[in-house]
Amino acid sequence: MRQNNHPVVPELKKDPISGRWVIIARQRAKRPHQLGEAAHAAARPEPCPFCPGNEALTPPEVLAYRNRDSQANAPGWTVRVVPNKYPALADAGEKASARDPIYQSRHAVGVHEVIIESPQHVASMAALSAEQITLVLRAYRERIREIKKNPRWRYTLIYKNQGQGAGATLEHVHSQLIALPAPPAQAQAELDRAGRYYDATRRCIYCDLLEREKGATARLILDADRFIVFCPYAPRFAYETWILPTEHIASFEQVSDHALSHLASVIKDLTARLNRALDDPPFNYLIQSIRSRAGAPCHWRIEFLPQIARAAGFEWGTGIHVNGVAPEDAARLLRAAV
Amino acid sequence: MRQNNHPVVPELKKDPISGRWVIIARQRAKRPHQLGEAAHAAARPEPCPFCPGNEALTPPEVLAYRNRDSQANAPGWTVRVVPNKYPALADAGEKASARDPIYQSRHAVGVHEVIIESPQHVASMAALSAEQITLVLRAYRERIREIKKNPRWRYTLIYKNQGQGAGATLEHVHSQLIALPAPPAQAQAELDRAGRYYDATRRCIYCDLLEREKGATARLILDADRFIVFCPYAPRFAYETWILPTEHIASFEQVSDHALSHLASVIKDLTARLNRALDDPPFNYLIQSIRSRAGAPCHWRIEFLPQIARAAGFEWGTGIHVNGVAPEDAARLLRAAV
Repeated sequence: MRQNNHPVVPELKKDPISGRWVIIARQRAKRPHQLGEAAHAAARPEPCPFCPGNEALTPPEVLAYRNRDSQANAPGWTVRVVPNKYPALADAGEKASARDPIYQSRHAVGVHEVIIESPQHVASMAALSAEQITLVLRAYRERIREIKKNPRWRYTLIYKNQGQGAGATLEHVHSQLIALPAPPAQAQAELDRAGRYYDATRRCIYCDLLEREKGATARLILDADRFIVFCPYAPRFAYETWILPTEHIASFEQVSDHALSHLASVIKDLTARLNRALDDPPFNYLIQSIRSRAGAPCHWRIEFLPQIARAAGFEWGTGIHVNGVAPEDAARLLRAAV
Repeated sequence: MRQNNHPVVPELKKDPISGRWVIIARQRAKRPHQLGEAAHAAARPEPCPFCPGNEALTPPEVLAYRNRDSQANAPGWTVRVVPNKYPALADAGEKASARDPIYQSRHAVGVHEVIIESPQHVASMAALSAEQITLVLRAYRERIREIKKNPRWRYTLIYKNQGQGAGATLEHVHSQLIALPAPPAQAQAELDRAGRYYDATRRCIYCDLLEREKGATARLILDADRFIVFCPYAPRFAYETWILPTEHIASFEQVSDHALSHLASVIKDLTARLNRALDDPPFNYLIQSIRSRAGAPCHWRIEFLPQIARAAGFEWGTGIHVNGVAPEDAARLLRAAV
């Protein structure tokens, strides 16, 4: 046995039985947990590493929107992006393990950043103005564009964990960005499906889905010209809601300034609806950008995933999510929540 | 649009974008939630449907181990198995939707039962004696054997959700059983992997894994002759622990009485270790029984999945779990927790 069982670099390891890859990132266990799993741990310890004045508690910023007279890694910013101090991915070469029929591992290579969405210590995105959300979206776009200049990164994911029930460990409003050298299996499966649909029909499956959802209206929450907001036909989570652009654009980072401002107001509207209907639920959201091979159409979206029930034995055992709320019922509730 | 958007029968629906199947089971939203998501909801409302005297609150039992002079669906039992009152699956024919290129659905056909593990209202399996756990395991075996007499059911899963953090909605100690007409995609992938390994080596991958884990010892917690207890090489969850029988037996329901008693003592030991090391963590466990096609070797196991961190945006977005605790570190802690 090699002694290097406990890497500092996060490691991708493959379970020999299921074939599933997982990331073992030991340094993540050292993260500060302002939001404990137990409710009694909800007290917020000072200092918050994302508050102005505490910039030295994070790695140096890779992007910040700041006042003209302010200095890097000092107060005066409105949005700040820093490398994740406890990354699940690291840019550490491509070392693969010796070929072993049972145990396979390699370094978990990638980029892992944190987008601090406001200098104010608020927990909820709903507390941000549409203008502030526009800046956050612009920071996403700018970082993805910058990262994708390196042809090595063929997949990026923006995600948010808001609230302890959605896996947040820090309260201060933030989201995260990862980049990987290749799409994970589930993203690749999505690309392949879209490609097969295109081969069979010469149409974009996302555009066709958009038309169907607009036409049916049972799952539609908002038809906002540039975007539709709807509960998808087969949601994993209760009240899962997608924002789908009406314009056929492959990746989020291609979105225009105009569309970003509009998207911010749509997000503001949706978070307000979720909060009114579901009493400030914890939620995740996801924005994937997949660099597709020539010909395979893609069309970006945002998935909002409220975390009300918990995945449990059924889901972990079968891989199939059980959802107690039909999307038509969820959409009716969210339509009414104005 | 057909009006049947809101089935009473649980429905399997396929997301057109990801290709993922989910189950929409509207009646499950009506479940009593003794364990709310919020900690302040932890108060236990009476009456508990799993306590003796309240048998009428569940569907009629399909199996009970009871005193000779007691009557069905009345007190006097030690283990009681009933259909799930709020099933995620129902035996309701195989109705598939019209072939639609975007929307596909069918009835979620299957068996969904609840195993009430003790007449005592206790929340933790660790409170049960090894003798009582033996009875629970015997009930699992008896129900799986009975269900598999019907050739329609080619897959069963026993699972437990213990604690609110593991998705339990009722406190009284219980587990659940489902049967499906075919293995879910992730179970089929496991079978296929084992089959390919067998084709290449003429050996059982589970037996080979067992030898490797026994030999390496870094992840071994207990070598108990009939079973080894270890933290797997690529665990999805912190402190994930597997119990693997040393005897090559395909399915749990083939296990002998002798082995069941031994397994009960191993489970008792493992739950005590988890509780000591991790302060009574919520956990799931899983026991799959796959009816494999001729030639594909299978070898059952139990997976214990403590739920300490929460799956979040990274996991939902990429499908890859990030685990902050290396299995070697987890095994060291659990070995010491005696």
